[in-house]
Amino acid sequence: MNQASTASSEPTTDQHTDRQSIHIQAVTGIPDIKPGDDLAAEILIALKNMQLPLAHGDILVIAHKVVSKAEGQIVDLATVTPSAEALEIAKKLNKDPAKVETVLRESSQIVRTSKRADQDEGLIIAKHRLGFICANAAVDESNVDQQNHVILLPKDPDASARSICAALEQATGKKLGVVITDTFGRPWRMGLVNVAIGLAKVPAKVDMAGETDAYGRELKVTVPALADELAAASGLLMSKEGKKPVLVFSGVQWTPRASSAQELIRPTGEDLFK
Amino acid sequence: MNQASTASSEPTTDQHTDRQSIHIQAVTGIPDIKPGDDLAAEILIALKNMQLPLAHGDILVIAHKVVSKAEGQIVDLATVTPSAEALEIAKKLNKDPAKVETVLRESSQIVRTSKRADQDEGLIIAKHRLGFICANAAVDESNVDQQNHVILLPKDPDASARSICAALEQATGKKLGVVITDTFGRPWRMGLVNVAIGLAKVPAKVDMAGETDAYGRELKVTVPALADELAAASGLLMSKEGKKPVLVFSGVQWTPRASSAQELIRPTGEDLFK
Repeated sequence: MNQASTASSEPTTDQHTDRQSIHIQAVTGIPDIKPGDDLAAEILIALKNMQLPLAHGDILVIAHKVVSKAEGQIVDLATVTPSAEALEIAKKLNKDPAKVETVLRESSQIVRTSKRADQDEGLIIAKHRLGFICANAAVDESNVDQQNHVILLPKDPDASARSICAALEQATGKKLGVVITDTFGRPWRMGLVNVAIGLAKVPAKVDMAGETDAYGRELKVTVPALADELAAASGLLMSKEGKKPVLVFSGVQWTPRASSAQELIRPTGEDLFK
Repeated sequence: MNQASTASSEPTTDQHTDRQSIHIQAVTGIPDIKPGDDLAAEILIALKNMQLPLAHGDILVIAHKVVSKAEGQIVDLATVTPSAEALEIAKKLNKDPAKVETVLRESSQIVRTSKRADQDEGLIIAKHRLGFICANAAVDESNVDQQNHVILLPKDPDASARSICAALEQATGKKLGVVITDTFGRPWRMGLVNVAIGLAKVPAKVDMAGETDAYGRELKVTVPALADELAAASGLLMSKEGKKPVLVFSGVQWTPRASSAQELIRPTGEDLFK
């Protein structure tokens, strides 16, 4: 991707390869994605128009919204009949009952609901059926082109990532990785960051156990969340207005393997922070 | 920094400047930092040796360990007398009492202690005196060159960032930003990411309220944590072995302002995720 970077070599299996720079490139010119569109094909067209070929080891980081749209994961709230539970929560939080019903359908558990006196509309913290804990079970109103429609997460974001990755690899002959992201709030810290919700080949975490620090001391618990580092970095360039949903990372040191964003979900019993 | 990027212009006050790429460069050749060293001077020497001049708008992301070391924020555990509370926690968690005492001295509150049967040593989740909630109040054993010594956070990481930023700006004549990071675990999600603990000029968050999405719908709650995006991205290149503690980000769209990592700490009463 980036001619000046070291990313044109194969993804390395050597943890100690000493890469010194990373280039993050927005893929421009991707059209408005509609249900049924072939997202990988649209990315390839955009890259061709940019005259930017992909290279071995490049990682594509993709905002889930374009994946969800291509897969038709859009709900017309006018078609949703709220349950009694949805009506009750909607009243308490001053939210649209059809939206609350959609959140409930996407959730395996409501973690907390909250509405401050100064808020027009309250918030639902939910455990999404995929295990991610986030606001409104990731049901999102922004960047939808139709009034009264909301976007859901892809049905199986890991499968979506694998499918896009396979199509891009087949078309280019390069070994690639894909990370699909969503934007989450965080306990204890203000502001939003993008996190990984679907992975193809990119390891969720890099296990450094057994490696040593600069002084030869063994690193026991240093497990960087590589996929979330990539996701968070994507927020630097993916405009919040939704116009740059695909980025190419070149120069990242990584080793392809079978992976899943599910590895990033902390088992309930192990959550020391709850 | 990166000739191919668009970062050589002034940091912009126009939120809509459409930057398309970001380059992240590791600063190589920074020597082992000792108490009393001038970190900014060492960074400037390393950049000169690399023949990489800084440009307007570049942001330096720095692992706190080199800042802490330069400031002498190192504790010889042999000099620490554990309190009764430290002795009690140390026994319960099978931890070094002097280390627990150091954690207590750095903390304003112990959030939780935990030791699983399969763990040799337990964990303390603490609220650091600066407000950050993290493991062991950020008291760290790795990347210290002396046995039985631990590294603390800088006394005032925002002040450290401002001091380094001012020195770099004075030497180069460029308008720069500085982010000081530490590596934190996270509630609900596995793996570690770097977060911002000290800021100079780089906004903690970018308030998008009032901006519109791709379809003209107002973005009400989209507040990206820019400083944490930069910090998390730094984990992609800062080797966990501690040998690449300083990175230069070029091409980031940002507007300098007075800032503090304290803005990233969620007020206790507002923590919907706890």
